[in-house]
Amino acid sequence: SDCVFCRIVAGEIPATAVLSTDCAFAFLDINPLADGHTLLIPTNHAATLDDMTPEEVAAVVSQLPPLARALMAATGADGYNILQNNGSVAGQVVTHVHFHIIPRVADDGLGFRWNAGLYPEGRAAEIQAGIKAELAG
Amino acid sequence: SDCVFCRIVAGEIPATAVLSTDCAFAFLDINPLADGHTLLIPTNHAATLDDMTPEEVAAVVSQLPPLARALMAATGADGYNILQNNGSVAGQVVTHVHFHIIPRVADDGLGFRWNAGLYPEGRAAEIQAGIKAELAG
Repeated sequence: SDCVFCRIVAGEIPATAVLSTDCAFAFLDINPLADGHTLLIPTNHAATLDDMTPEEVAAVVSQLPPLARALMAATGADGYNILQNNGSVAGQVVTHVHFHIIPRVADDGLGFRWNAGLYPEGRAAEIQAGIKAELAG
Repeated sequence: SDCVFCRIVAGEIPATAVLSTDCAFAFLDINPLADGHTLLIPTNHAATLDDMTPEEVAAVVSQLPPLARALMAATGADGYNILQNNGSVAGQVVTHVHFHIIPRVADDGLGFRWNAGLYPEGRAAEIQAGIKAELAG
């Protein structure tokens, strides 16, 4: 495989692993945004979250609560962000699904750029109708 | 309940809902970062992800693949971020777990502030040992 995360799961590239199950694998990000920045990934390759089945997603994300608790305890962080990017436009670099767990402390300079707006009249209802139509398939 | 998201689930506060199951509820963010910015929440109250059971997290997050596909199709976005903030230090405002689904297009000015670093010698192994000890608990 050419996928660096598949090769980490296979043990072909070393990583600082913290959790391993049949479906999920977690290791420290080699370029951390914060002390204890961890990546949780599916062991099977998938490029983006929408390429996974609900069951595959469930098997991976059910690891998040104990992992987040362990990370907080081990690093002394006061909170954390879960961030998962899909597509290069969203900042995804490695095209194998990964959930960033980013421990946070006061004044760390991290966070999402938050330029919130408001919908023009009618636009929210239009999007709602579009999403519901897609879900109804 | 004083929780605004519990009141939305109960129908006491209006919202532009797009998905509703026994365990999960999704609606458009009233202050969107992008067209179609959606919040996916558990119907049962929990302040942070680590307050939920693995099964509760799985039941909510397994809704993400179809919901993300529907959102992309309805808005024409090229990618999306999943963001879930835990604790005020991590930018959490409403203390009821919520997964932001943020559609992304080129040059939208969004994204996580990415100030990546490197671990000093020995620190990664130290954190790894701490997390593994907590998980073995």
